[in-house]
Amino acid sequence: MNVELVTIGDEILIGQTIDTNSAWMAKQLNSLGVKVAQIISVKDEREAILDQLSTSFERADLVITTGGLGPTKDDITKQVLCDFFDTELYRNAEVLERIEDYFRSRNRVMLETNRQQADLPKACEVLTNLVGTASGMWFEKKGRVVVSMPGVPYEMKHLMSEEVLPRIKDRFDLPTLFHHTIMTEGIGESFLAEQVKEWEDSLSSEGIHLAYLPSPGIVKLRLSAEGDELAQLKEKILKKSKEFKQLVPQYIFGDNDIKAEEALGVQLKKQQKTIATAESCTGGYLAHLLTSVPGSSEYFKGSVVSYANEVKMNTLNVSEESLNTLGAVSQSVVEQMAQNVRQKMNADFALATSGVAGPEGGTDRKPVGTVWIALATKEGVYAKRFQFEQNRERNIRRSALAAIGMLRRYLEGHLEIRT
Amino acid sequence: MNVELVTIGDEILIGQTIDTNSAWMAKQLNSLGVKVAQIISVKDEREAILDQLSTSFERADLVITTGGLGPTKDDITKQVLCDFFDTELYRNAEVLERIEDYFRSRNRVMLETNRQQADLPKACEVLTNLVGTASGMWFEKKGRVVVSMPGVPYEMKHLMSEEVLPRIKDRFDLPTLFHHTIMTEGIGESFLAEQVKEWEDSLSSEGIHLAYLPSPGIVKLRLSAEGDELAQLKEKILKKSKEFKQLVPQYIFGDNDIKAEEALGVQLKKQQKTIATAESCTGGYLAHLLTSVPGSSEYFKGSVVSYANEVKMNTLNVSEESLNTLGAVSQSVVEQMAQNVRQKMNADFALATSGVAGPEGGTDRKPVGTVWIALATKEGVYAKRFQFEQNRERNIRRSALAAIGMLRRYLEGHLEIRT
Repeated sequence: MNVELVTIGDEILIGQTIDTNSAWMAKQLNSLGVKVAQIISVKDEREAILDQLSTSFERADLVITTGGLGPTKDDITKQVLCDFFDTELYRNAEVLERIEDYFRSRNRVMLETNRQQADLPKACEVLTNLVGTASGMWFEKKGRVVVSMPGVPYEMKHLMSEEVLPRIKDRFDLPTLFHHTIMTEGIGESFLAEQVKEWEDSLSSEGIHLAYLPSPGIVKLRLSAEGDELAQLKEKILKKSKEFKQLVPQYIFGDNDIKAEEALGVQLKKQQKTIATAESCTGGYLAHLLTSVPGSSEYFKGSVVSYANEVKMNTLNVSEESLNTLGAVSQSVVEQMAQNVRQKMNADFALATSGVAGPEGGTDRKPVGTVWIALATKEGVYAKRFQFEQNRERNIRRSALAAIGMLRRYLEGHLEIRT
Repeated sequence: MNVELVTIGDEILIGQTIDTNSAWMAKQLNSLGVKVAQIISVKDEREAILDQLSTSFERADLVITTGGLGPTKDDITKQVLCDFFDTELYRNAEVLERIEDYFRSRNRVMLETNRQQADLPKACEVLTNLVGTASGMWFEKKGRVVVSMPGVPYEMKHLMSEEVLPRIKDRFDLPTLFHHTIMTEGIGESFLAEQVKEWEDSLSSEGIHLAYLPSPGIVKLRLSAEGDELAQLKEKILKKSKEFKQLVPQYIFGDNDIKAEEALGVQLKKQQKTIATAESCTGGYLAHLLTSVPGSSEYFKGSVVSYANEVKMNTLNVSEESLNTLGAVSQSVVEQMAQNVRQKMNADFALATSGVAGPEGGTDRKPVGTVWIALATKEGVYAKRFQFEQNRERNIRRSALAAIGMLRRYLEGHLEIRT
């Protein structure tokens, strides 16, 4: 089965809006075993829409369009759809009533352009939009389907989940698919691949497809298989995932797109432990990641962002001598930062970072990307030097992820701390 | 002139990656007066790439492709390009040397697949990639141009800025365009539009087009005009920008996509002042924004992220009584946080935040989105209550931007502080 997604809207072509709708739709369709062959963005113009509709309709069994249905643009897309399907608009009484209710309940003035949103092509099946005023449309012709939805993300998501996906399941003969994602941190894609080579080689005979999806600091592995029976697919994929986890447990922080900071939060909650941070090169980003998780106040106590050496001394009691002789980016300083913030904030654990984020500040012995990270516990302290990249933003992110990974490894027993 | 952007990569079609490259490229092209007619994402497969290349080449004067050039996928896209342009691959000695240097300087092992990145089509002009190992390619045929670049965003951006855009300016006859962007913070789009209505009405007779580009906490205004003479366009747009700035100076933090945190950094450097922060609901994000600016160590001293009340008391000396009687989200507490961190870190200014970011923790009197922000100076302290939204991530970002805006307004004389 061949699917194309067509996004209608100038705002995407001038780069003002990033097309996040298509990625969301593609993910939903994929989880049903429907593969998207193309994603196309076209202008809000009659000719552009009509041309693309014809081209996609020739190639695909299902064409899903979004956008071009707002009250001001209404006539273009709907009229193009009418012309394409050789039909005409009529005012749908039921939809009109719902639009009127929508405005009444929000105490908003209704204009004729709003009423026109109830004008729909005779040839389509109307998809009820409960969260907005632009209806979705489902057309069939020559055994092929065209769907049209508004481009507002939450309206599209509502229509897709409630109306479009169920109809796709009914209408098309779909394969049975199962996906599972494993999240790793602390090892590069090629090194990881080398460590699990045999395991990876064993996947193809089981009909499992593996994809490595790297981003700075994190490599996601996606296992997927297609077959007849879901239970069977699930069993074989989860068995292989388990094998993988036994091979490199120290690098794995969770499944199915969980974030590293969320996974750490789950662990801390489970073990009823608290955490504090002391940050130099990460400048608050580590605390930000940890507190971006709802409910993090249960385990996160606070952070001292000690950018100036003066703050390292006065607020974190780092020794002036260490700063002068060894420098801020040193094992001793980062260890003191971790130990002192842990005590100061009365936390079970503390993470500290000190490094050269760049672009300035690098030296021969400590080039840009040099970062010390420390973990302090009640028993002792552990520190490690990392060498990241040239890019400030990525160095900050990779440092924070490495710190989170360090505590995770300790909590899971993969890291020992000197006492 | 007709341009199409073609993104090659399964990761976009399965929804795992959002295509941010196309929006970025479209924006850059737009600022040269080049309009993108279509954006297309296709599979990492020979037939799909070849078909789309043929289709786009028929329609467009310029086709820009990204993706499909990593070491593992190398052969597909480059081979397709060779077939399309009836040429063959050769090993480019200069590129090979640069790749070898790249690996040497990073102490990384080089594999044959890495060497193969120096294999390039004979018919193309090589675009030097200084930040990665996949070269860009520029092909010309029948008066039309095809460009191929790697899909890694920072490599693509580097190649686009340094190699592709300058060549486009040389090669094509572009209209004369001038854009100017004004950045505002602290006022919603519709309120802003109301305040500058007359000014806005005066633009069309001058041939100036205005677009409002809102994002959480920030509204960007883009003025643009097309004509014959750049100097003339520039003059009339800058004149109108100046008028706008005189109308609502308190909301404007800069021009041309500067970030609020960068603009504040420029001001602090100019006035040789320093800043510290004390954060509750922003959880380190305010410090992160400020330190995301290269060179911020010149004015940023540090932050205390006091998530737990205990840290507010012990590290920031907030009075226990205020916390108990008024609560952490109160004027008194946020003022104490700001004043105490300023003194503690010996800074000229301090900003503090305390609020209910959500999704939990809201009450009738302090619903989710209630945020107190304070600014302390040597002379006194100012605090203001804000009511943001339901979404945690947006509340954190809007709080940090509002804090930055508060200090900016003070530095520019739009805000008075009680002494």
